Amino acid sequence: MLGLGLIGGSLLRALDRAGRPAFGWNRSAATVDAAAAAGHDADTDLSAVLARAAQQDALVVVATPTPIVGEILAQVARHAPGCALTDVVSVKQAVADAVAERGLSARYVGGHPMAGTSRSGWDATDPDLFVDAPWVVCADDDTDPMVWSTVADVALAVGARVVPVATEDHDPLVAAISHLPHLTAAVTATVGAGPGDLALRLAAGSFRDGTRVAGTAVDLQRAMIEANGPAVLTLLSEAIDRLTAARDELRDSGTVHTLVEDGHRARTRWDAMRGADPEPIVDVTVGSDGWAAELRRQAHLGRVWTGPGQTRRDSPG
Amino acid sequence: MLGLGLIGGSLLRALDRAGRPAFGWNRSAATVDAAAAAGHDADTDLSAVLARAAQQDALVVVATPTPIVGEILAQVARHAPGCALTDVVSVKQAVADAVAERGLSARYVGGHPMAGTSRSGWDATDPDLFVDAPWVVCADDDTDPMVWSTVADVALAVGARVVPVATEDHDPLVAAISHLPHLTAAVTATVGAGPGDLALRLAAGSFRDGTRVAGTAVDLQRAMIEANGPAVLTLLSEAIDRLTAARDELRDSGTVHTLVEDGHRARTRWDAMRGADPEPIVDVTVGSDGWAAELRRQAHLGRVWTGPGQTRRDSPG
Repeated sequence: MLGLGLIGGSLLRALDRAGRPAFGWNRSAATVDAAAAAGHDADTDLSAVLARAAQQDALVVVATPTPIVGEILAQVARHAPGCALTDVVSVKQAVADAVAERGLSARYVGGHPMAGTSRSGWDATDPDLFVDAPWVVCADDDTDPMVWSTVADVALAVGARVVPVATEDHDPLVAAISHLPHLTAAVTATVGAGPGDLALRLAAGSFRDGTRVAGTAVDLQRAMIEANGPAVLTLLSEAIDRLTAARDELRDSGTVHTLVEDGHRARTRWDAMRGADPEPIVDVTVGSDGWAAELRRQAHLGRVWTGPGQTRRDSPG
Repeated sequence: MLGLGLIGGSLLRALDRAGRPAFGWNRSAATVDAAAAAGHDADTDLSAVLARAAQQDALVVVATPTPIVGEILAQVARHAPGCALTDVVSVKQAVADAVAERGLSARYVGGHPMAGTSRSGWDATDPDLFVDAPWVVCADDDTDPMVWSTVADVALAVGARVVPVATEDHDPLVAAISHLPHLTAAVTATVGAGPGDLALRLAAGSFRDGTRVAGTAVDLQRAMIEANGPAVLTLLSEAIDRLTAARDELRDSGTVHTLVEDGHRARTRWDAMRGADPEPIVDVTVGSDGWAAELRRQAHLGRVWTGPGQTRRDSPG
């Protein structure tokens, strides 16, 4: 585990609790000391940690902030180039490109657990962070099936729901459901605070929830949003267009019904989805012909990977 | 209590629990039956309820949806024109205008409890809804001090924090902290759902919180936003300008730091404010010369009305 912040630290704690052997690196001695004091195996010496990973043929998980991923990958290429490799960074194309630059693509499978809070750092870690959370494990046509299974197995071990997605589809999806919400929250907070302290004193539920993620550390927000620039740009333009249409409708016709109805429909659809337990992906053997495409197809039907051996209940075989 | 939805019904329940005599009207027999079954005094006959209010010199509280407020006020003018009158509607200028049209201004003091959930109707009522919630009680230079005290006393009886605000200041404040957040939530939900079901299946905390209020009943959202059209238009334009600036900055410089930093600062300021208990308004006797202006002045300093008799602790007298 390279990086012991909210995601990496939570993952180390969750794996330890699940009885899976795991050890971690963090640049900050304070973080490593806190992890060690809590009984975890952690070190500040990156090359030593990577040498140990290489010796044990461990899965290397890059869990550092986005801006230093390239630097970390260079060290992986130097000390543990043969290890299976994944990451938990919130964009996938930029990481895949950086991995390719260092010649590490063959053993790399990108990942992204869709879990988090507005807090960060070791103190915010929680071994339950991933329970029932979707965890994207990228499945492309050239993905190594052994590495894919190893990464999916880690996600399952900590209670997540594995969602196979093509690398190129990931970033636009995340721009829509995660990065744009950070920017709309920032606008809501900024405009809401505009009239001054009295406005903020009156602010209640709609402001509280609508601006929560604006309280996330600025560096973390910037890193993830700016790394996904092209996809975010497209969606920002869409958001601007819809707000402009709502303003024109309110000015010209005195109503905001289009936007309010569209928003209500989208939220209601989400409420309905999260109420239901997802169906498992069935009848796929990872590594068989066309396995990645079949995983992606079933994921689009709303199914999640729950491990090998799932077969259709009504299957004649 | 005219109207037994989320706000009116919660207020009836809270007043009954506080031992304050209260009775209510609702158009729907099902709601009245539910309220009566829970031990509350409720009726579907509006003219009878208003005649009783007139006989008892009760405070009349208009708690119906915005679109029928005018119709209700006409009945108040007919059956209980001498009663003290308030309302809990989320806009104040339009209600004050409607009150003036019916010749009821002299005994009217507008109110707005800043509490709510995305649910509505009697089933959503909660006698704790107002505990520690800000409750705007409009204080203008021509406000009747007796009625103001009566309305403030009701808000205090159910645990709210009374915030005196000029009628003309209320609507822009609420547009900023409540109505605009509904529209940004709707945009977040709509754009987030754009890529289809897979996006919604991956949506986690930032989508959940950022879109919560988009799930409020469409009619309720439209009624409150459309009744506050001019103030909402101004803030929608500001939100569009800020998002456009963020898009241009991302496109031209690869960063979103201005918007993210502004949003973080606003949210952090709100977090700091809500952590502290507000100071009480001191040294004001309601009805004395300039009382309303002094209440407003102290409210702008972050103080709340906690009842008569508060004097400065360090006062020499």
